[in-house]
Amino acid sequence: MAQNDSLSEFLQTAVEAAKRAGEIIREGFYQTKHVEHKGLVDLVTETDKACEDLIFNYLKQQHPSHKFIGEETTAACGITELTDEPTWIVDPLDGTTNFVHGFPFVCISIGLTIGKVPTVGVVYNPIMDELFTGVHGKGAFLNGKPIKGVSELTIVSFHILVLLHANLSMTLKQLPTCVSIAVSSQSELVKSLLATEAGTKRDKSTVDATTNRINSLLFKVRSLRMTGSCALNLCGIACGRIDLFYETGYGGPWDVAGGAVIVKEAGGIVYDPSGKDFDITSQRVAASNPLLKEAFVEVLQQSE
Amino acid sequence: MAQNDSLSEFLQTAVEAAKRAGEIIREGFYQTKHVEHKGLVDLVTETDKACEDLIFNYLKQQHPSHKFIGEETTAACGITELTDEPTWIVDPLDGTTNFVHGFPFVCISIGLTIGKVPTVGVVYNPIMDELFTGVHGKGAFLNGKPIKGVSELTIVSFHILVLLHANLSMTLKQLPTCVSIAVSSQSELVKSLLATEAGTKRDKSTVDATTNRINSLLFKVRSLRMTGSCALNLCGIACGRIDLFYETGYGGPWDVAGGAVIVKEAGGIVYDPSGKDFDITSQRVAASNPLLKEAFVEVLQQSE
Repeated sequence: MAQNDSLSEFLQTAVEAAKRAGEIIREGFYQTKHVEHKGLVDLVTETDKACEDLIFNYLKQQHPSHKFIGEETTAACGITELTDEPTWIVDPLDGTTNFVHGFPFVCISIGLTIGKVPTVGVVYNPIMDELFTGVHGKGAFLNGKPIKGVSELTIVSFHILVLLHANLSMTLKQLPTCVSIAVSSQSELVKSLLATEAGTKRDKSTVDATTNRINSLLFKVRSLRMTGSCALNLCGIACGRIDLFYETGYGGPWDVAGGAVIVKEAGGIVYDPSGKDFDITSQRVAASNPLLKEAFVEVLQQSE
Repeated sequence: MAQNDSLSEFLQTAVEAAKRAGEIIREGFYQTKHVEHKGLVDLVTETDKACEDLIFNYLKQQHPSHKFIGEETTAACGITELTDEPTWIVDPLDGTTNFVHGFPFVCISIGLTIGKVPTVGVVYNPIMDELFTGVHGKGAFLNGKPIKGVSELTIVSFHILVLLHANLSMTLKQLPTCVSIAVSSQSELVKSLLATEAGTKRDKSTVDATTNRINSLLFKVRSLRMTGSCALNLCGIACGRIDLFYETGYGGPWDVAGGAVIVKEAGGIVYDPSGKDFDITSQRVAASNPLLKEAFVEVLQQSE
């Protein structure tokens, strides 16, 4: 009970930190187009740094005994080893290229590991105002709404609605109240939507490996999406917008620490692309619902 | 003057039709997860058909003498030849795969050609509630806000804001009022964000050509995005979220008729990937700002 109380307190702190950093990112997002190249580099660096400072200061104030790993601090001070202590792992601005270009897939990713297990996750996209949260054993949420198993909805009423609309006889003003959000229930690769990324490395062997794998996978899945944010790809798996995701060679544990909890709590699974257990420090991740794992791992191995 | 009046009237009709169809799409978008496979096929077909009927009925009521070309009607009745008459070219649901998966890049695309020239364009994403419009010679707009040349903004005040935020001493409640939207001003490929699509054809030669081209381009540009909607990619060019876009082998003129006007009116250009003039009926499109065209065409030709 005490632990549950702490976890919900940890979640609350992380959400508050993410929301505050979100305001900085939102401001910068709409300004990047108006900055000279030199100013742009400064803007990105400043935003990244200001967000990490804000998040770390706030979390440290609330939880002074915890450890901290951040993308910015790691870049400046080297890798901090992950221990069993409660450790906050933070990407203050995931999707930097998107931020620079005004492409709306940017987010703050905050994860808390306890005993090296991702336990609390918060991923916030301040541009689309989508807040994904998850707490080990307590479920996942999008903007406070549970991400849960598929329920049977009143599809008949939707069909009637379509017919009414076609007759131009009514205008809807609100979204349906009965919408639910859930991890994909797809079991066939051929009907699955895959997400991956081109990454940032541009040496020939990396690029060749990336496009060879994409070539091989395009024959197996329905289609491919690339949005430029690892954390948001994980959240896409959690809420069923995509069925399959893999990425290797991304920045570090901050890209996956928050999203991994959210996927698991939504009923999805996170694993190494080889099918082995997910290692948060390995820079290798795959995610899907449990039904697709075996087939996905098989085609990922064939495409290596 | 009379013609300008007509054009603004045409735009108004198209916006109203797109908004009404948007309500149907929004409803269906949140329902797809709750439908069995057979029901899903029906839902997509019904939504597509209901939207096209709604749009065509509304436009025909307002402009009974005009011609009409739609994706659904073409699929059912074969290709209608494009003439010099005012012709509405409509994709009632661009991004069908996204619609099925709940991935938020779906839209209605409505274009009006006069003398075969795309003259009025409306692209509406009802999920993200973004309405892109353009009228030949009259500019492009996003949700009524002009998409215009880059203006110098108060970056200094932004920097101050970042510092204030970092001190946790204030909370922003609103977006900056001085935000402007514009086509990219990028002139270097290496700093450009490219969008393309994997398409729907899965024969070996098409897939190989697609991934070979991606392989070649990844060495030249900053990164790659794939969102699954041709019309929204064009709008992404118009408002500077992406710098480069090309696609070949897409469905038909309905994918580009609306977006082409919006790109041009935003100060961008639309052309054949070979560098030749854009042909709305050719299923080949490239778009960027004018500064990038020459270099982009060169790398597209190298990658063929």
